[in-house]
Amino acid sequence: MKKTSLPVGMHDKLFKRARVTYQIERDISDLLMDQGFNRIETPTLEHFEVFGDEISEGHYHLFDKKGALLSLRPDMTSQVGRLIASTQVETPIKFSYSGKVFNYHEEMRGLINEHTQAGIEIIGFPAEKALREAIYSAKQALDVAQVPSYRFEFSHALLLQTIVTELDLSHEEKKRLETDIIDKNITKLREFTKKKPSEFDALIRRLPYLFGESGDVLAEARQLTDNESILSALDEVESLIEEVKPSLLQVNVDLAQFPSMPYYTGLMFKVFGEKVPDAFVSGGRYDKLFQRFGASELTAVGWAVDIDSVYQAVHDSL
Amino acid sequence: MKKTSLPVGMHDKLFKRARVTYQIERDISDLLMDQGFNRIETPTLEHFEVFGDEISEGHYHLFDKKGALLSLRPDMTSQVGRLIASTQVETPIKFSYSGKVFNYHEEMRGLINEHTQAGIEIIGFPAEKALREAIYSAKQALDVAQVPSYRFEFSHALLLQTIVTELDLSHEEKKRLETDIIDKNITKLREFTKKKPSEFDALIRRLPYLFGESGDVLAEARQLTDNESILSALDEVESLIEEVKPSLLQVNVDLAQFPSMPYYTGLMFKVFGEKVPDAFVSGGRYDKLFQRFGASELTAVGWAVDIDSVYQAVHDSL
Repeated sequence: MKKTSLPVGMHDKLFKRARVTYQIERDISDLLMDQGFNRIETPTLEHFEVFGDEISEGHYHLFDKKGALLSLRPDMTSQVGRLIASTQVETPIKFSYSGKVFNYHEEMRGLINEHTQAGIEIIGFPAEKALREAIYSAKQALDVAQVPSYRFEFSHALLLQTIVTELDLSHEEKKRLETDIIDKNITKLREFTKKKPSEFDALIRRLPYLFGESGDVLAEARQLTDNESILSALDEVESLIEEVKPSLLQVNVDLAQFPSMPYYTGLMFKVFGEKVPDAFVSGGRYDKLFQRFGASELTAVGWAVDIDSVYQAVHDSL
Repeated sequence: MKKTSLPVGMHDKLFKRARVTYQIERDISDLLMDQGFNRIETPTLEHFEVFGDEISEGHYHLFDKKGALLSLRPDMTSQVGRLIASTQVETPIKFSYSGKVFNYHEEMRGLINEHTQAGIEIIGFPAEKALREAIYSAKQALDVAQVPSYRFEFSHALLLQTIVTELDLSHEEKKRLETDIIDKNITKLREFTKKKPSEFDALIRRLPYLFGESGDVLAEARQLTDNESILSALDEVESLIEEVKPSLLQVNVDLAQFPSMPYYTGLMFKVFGEKVPDAFVSGGRYDKLFQRFGASELTAVGWAVDIDSVYQAVHDSL
């Protein structure tokens, strides 16, 4: 009975779940507007090209009646890139938003293909200051949502990007390397460094373990490389952590953290909770976002919080 | 440049428009929850069968990877019908919701194919009481949104339904009759009553003009027919208006008002403003909604408000 069943990954929210996810989205939205982030609303449907040069299996697609291929948006940051590049909006500017995003996963237990996100974008401001503002606003968003405990994990997009560029890896080789690091597949990583020996061998083989307390991890990473751009990325992570640690309580580094979107160019952070496997919040710096849309490079920092994950983290305490 | 242009009917909302439409949606949602309407959230995608037995040109469609045809929801009331029929939710119950709905219109100046709606459903309660509660909550929603002036227009689904049933009109004949009444095409209506003479001839020819002050219009309508079910529908409209008029200020009847959704079965109302061509609010009684999904008949009353139209009505006064 198609008429009374839901499509894969679609769900009704009822009673407490519906009420509390609404309240979390509302309270975070209100907080961000109060803090001076201009509310924006981008449409649910875009031309698929906004989200990537190639068609992604993980997106929902449809043709409009003129034959143009559209996507249900998988994220809102790409839309903000399109918006800045194609409208008269003046920078610097700070945006906030909330709404639905869609990712197509095949049938799995409890999967959710429609998520509610809220987030910010800080565009055209000095990057250091923007990063700190982004991190504090993410913390305040989790506090206003009453998340009982959470942990910030910092990383830097330049680590993997430097390795990929210096070793001239193809897209496939890069993907495989990422997978082997995430899977902690030491055998495969040894094979990789044998096949492509370089100054990064020690770092690559150790990357899967470079997470935890920032002092120890950064000290170990520095022992493993002489590459200047990686060392300066590590300095950047360290000085940021020193500054934000007193207000954030729980802070780690995870140097094997990979960009969740291809447009990240600098510092990145994720926020995790105790009871939820995935990150609540993903954020970072992505100055190259706008170039995809033909606009000039602009400093850009932002984050998005997954309201459904936040609900998972808070609902037992309510 | 597909990458920097928006699909037909899709728009960005910026600055005041984004902020105020968010606030209107939030304030109406909060009001309804405070009044005891349980918040629900239904998914953006459903099997197309939820919204009708046939594929509608006015909906957005896509195939999932198993070949099932999905629709981006054009309304939320049909989803509530599906939900009540397929879950363990106990009735009587009162729901409130807000979110996006999608209707596909071809290129026209300023058209909007994605709208933000908020609304309620009152299910399984005594119908008279439910209707009054629906009307008062619609009024309060418009007041909390600061709509400066608005007018309720009442009608009854049984008027046209009685004519269609008694004259045994086909779907096409019914559609044509509706169009001729809406267009006030008196020549065509005369042709119709010549071709299908009946006790309704005088009423049909006069229907396009049966709107305005309730006392006059209802008195005239009563002169034009002896049909008992139509007369009792007119009585129902009259007694409701007598009761609600003192609190609503501006009240009309429009007996040529046609159901905006096929599931209406009784009293219907729309709310109009001064500067906005379309109705802000559409609502009424639709007891037969649940039968489409294989559930038994239940009293049901609800309305939906178009947040984008409300913004049009209030933005000059802000």
